[in-house]
Amino acid sequence: MAQNIYDDPDFFAGYSQLPRQVEGLDGAPEWPAIRAMLPELSGRRVADLGCGFGWASRWMRDRGAASVLGFDLSQNMIARARADTRDPAIEYRIADLDTLDLPEASFDLVYSALTFHYVRDFDRLVRMIHAALVPGGALVFTIEHPIFMAAAHPHWISDEDGRRTWPVNGYSIEGERRTNWFADGVLKYHRTLGTTLNTLIGAGFEPRCVEEFAPTPEQIEQMPALAEEMERPMMLLVSACRH
Amino acid sequence: MAQNIYDDPDFFAGYSQLPRQVEGLDGAPEWPAIRAMLPELSGRRVADLGCGFGWASRWMRDRGAASVLGFDLSQNMIARARADTRDPAIEYRIADLDTLDLPEASFDLVYSALTFHYVRDFDRLVRMIHAALVPGGALVFTIEHPIFMAAAHPHWISDEDGRRTWPVNGYSIEGERRTNWFADGVLKYHRTLGTTLNTLIGAGFEPRCVEEFAPTPEQIEQMPALAEEMERPMMLLVSACRH
Repeated sequence: MAQNIYDDPDFFAGYSQLPRQVEGLDGAPEWPAIRAMLPELSGRRVADLGCGFGWASRWMRDRGAASVLGFDLSQNMIARARADTRDPAIEYRIADLDTLDLPEASFDLVYSALTFHYVRDFDRLVRMIHAALVPGGALVFTIEHPIFMAAAHPHWISDEDGRRTWPVNGYSIEGERRTNWFADGVLKYHRTLGTTLNTLIGAGFEPRCVEEFAPTPEQIEQMPALAEEMERPMMLLVSACRH
Repeated sequence: MAQNIYDDPDFFAGYSQLPRQVEGLDGAPEWPAIRAMLPELSGRRVADLGCGFGWASRWMRDRGAASVLGFDLSQNMIARARADTRDPAIEYRIADLDTLDLPEASFDLVYSALTFHYVRDFDRLVRMIHAALVPGGALVFTIEHPIFMAAAHPHWISDEDGRRTWPVNGYSIEGERRTNWFADGVLKYHRTLGTTLNTLIGAGFEPRCVEEFAPTPEQIEQMPALAEEMERPMMLLVSACRH
């Protein structure tokens, strides 16, 4: 069973105040880049793995998805997601991605935002998703970037010119990383970018787009604090197509 | 015209003493990983872009390649490569990858080691290579990893525990990087991993394997100095297939 930090009251209290939880998709600077990677949604059957409060699930349904099935480990998240819709084509379930099995060839799109880095066995998950998609179906997901996750002490430092700099060590040593983020000892799994892509390819996916999220000049103008995201990527965005 | 640092006498004197130049492929720890990415060579027509002294060109011909055409900007390199073979199926030419045009549908494999990061217009190069390959042909190349290249001051630092750590900044700011490596001001071009892969995909390649080179436990046992390569990847190895 995966660690369920999202139902820790202290964690949840802090997490719920993040701009992306309060404002929804517009509070996530990477959302325009994700949206550009999504296929046409009209009539499509979608699974949203790690759906949280359901912001993306509802957005995809609003864009014409025939059905959206959202999964999250957190009872808090699923309770609020359920409270926020009465649409019978949107269904939310509590599930652990370390053990979830979806029915075969049942989805046109599997979407996941900032969740797969909590999953221990990425290969199992990716093979399950491949089987759950119809041929030609798409997998679009975001994770914390391995550059962001790798180091023993992942926080800003300064270089000799005083420039904001990110430390990397242990990059090729995959596995558990513990960080303190709204709670102590949040458990994540570091994988190299190569492992992430080769796992997809090995399962029968063809990578279509790999984005290491960086803000646009317009985004930086509107929110100058985003400029530091040019120094190192925090998020990796991937779209892949099932053969 | 690309910077031709390899014909700078001081640079060439130092560079020629690198283990990989003295010992050839066995002096390059990433060579076993590259070899695993190469297709069957028997009867294949190969282009080797940035062939240097021709170590890989000769190896591929020894493995049955029908012909190998090696290109390098450096007159020093090409002169020595030519001196090291009498095989009429191996030919070496001086060429600048910023302007090289290969004949269409003429190669089964395009190979390049540690050269493309000197190329200013990667998109032009990749589209030219795509056209030069037959359908089903392969592109296998290595470059300096963008994690290794990005920072303004790319050298080892220590984290708060004294651990060897690599600084990253400017990752999403692509373009020129100048380093001092056997000579001052060696000019390279930094591109994100996403840009490298999306350029391949956009030109009609399908990525088949993406390796961020790390030594095996056996390699570290034989050469303990390689252990630091686990901390951050220095090289990116990519194989892709022409649709």
